[in-house]
Amino acid sequence: MANVVIQINKSGADYDRRVMRNIMNLKNQLGDDLVQCEVVVFGEGMDLLQTQDEMIKEQIDALVESGIEFIACSNTLSKHNVTQEELVCSVGSAGSGVAHLVTRQTEGWAYLAL
Amino acid sequence: MANVVIQINKSGADYDRRVMRNIMNLKNQLGDDLVQCEVVVFGEGMDLLQTQDEMIKEQIDALVESGIEFIACSNTLSKHNVTQEELVCSVGSAGSGVAHLVTRQTEGWAYLAL
Amino acid sequence: MANVVIQINKSGADYDRRVMRNIMNLKNQLGDDLVQCEVVVFGEGMDLLQTQDEMIKEQIDALVESGIEFIACSNTLSKHNVTQEELVCSVGSAGSGVAHLVTRQTEGWAYLAL
Repeated sequence: MANVVIQINKSGADYDRRVMRNIMNLKNQLGDDLVQCEVVVFGEGMDLLQTQDEMIKEQIDALVESGIEFIACSNTLSKHNVTQEELVCSVGSAGSGVAHLVTRQTEGWAYLAL
Repeated sequence: MANVVIQINKSGADYDRRVMRNIMNLKNQLGDDLVQCEVVVFGEGMDLLQTQDEMIKEQIDALVESGIEFIACSNTLSKHNVTQEELVCSVGSAGSGVAHLVTRQTEGWAYLAL
Repeated sequence: MANVVIQINKSGADYDRRVMRNIMNLKNQLGDDLVQCEVVVFGEGMDLLQTQDEMIKEQIDALVESGIEFIACSNTLSKHNVTQEELVCSVGSAGSGVAHLVTRQTEGWAYLAL
């Protein structure tokens, strides 16, 4: 059984495709053993949640549908002048993305920096 | 005493040299306190295990000789059409590299994203 | 309550600004819940501790003032022919930066790879 928090803080078409593949593979491999999985998006990573790429959008939708939660860093949204409504999926919110990654680890969650 | 799982998922000659130095320094510093160390290779990181650089090959051999295990992500091998036999050292195998990194953390291993 | 060890091993003006913002946000968000925080600098990351950017220098000073400790990898200093006295702040020292990151995790600290 695993709870996992994933850091998404870089950008680029290749990066986006790679991290989506990583997360889908994680989900497929662990199956029901993946109890909770939060994808924490901050800094440049926010580009993923504003993608124009239809395939990536569908993958994000499928992950959300399967129970994976995307969490947007409020500090980044504010700095980039972006609102949650402008993102490609509905997201949870954390004041500071990095603080959320730390808090989850203190709660025993595994951590991935992608 | 430490068990460590290391993520290798980027590529480039500089990156390869740097991560080999990091792993050799880790091994030298911790000595026998480094009980188990697995280097999990996936995505672009697979270039390391197909390197043509003789110095890197020798460093990989020395690390394997010293008890460090390299683990190749099956999803990446399959996507890149590469077989384990084409890699520069004998490797363990994980269905999904990221899932393996998560599983080891749930078992109490430390994690390094290099 | 959280103890956190942060990996700084890349370089570039954008990277430096980003990681400083990340660490300041972490500190602001967690407040007194952030018990100990060590920023472990190695490899290319050592550029941060030799920055010429006055704003970054002030941010480093403010973080040190607030109780966050910067730790320089001795292997990197030696490889780059740099002494602790040439760095922009007073730092702690670790033989191997990666080994220190591992040791802290075995002591229950959270880990961030920035």
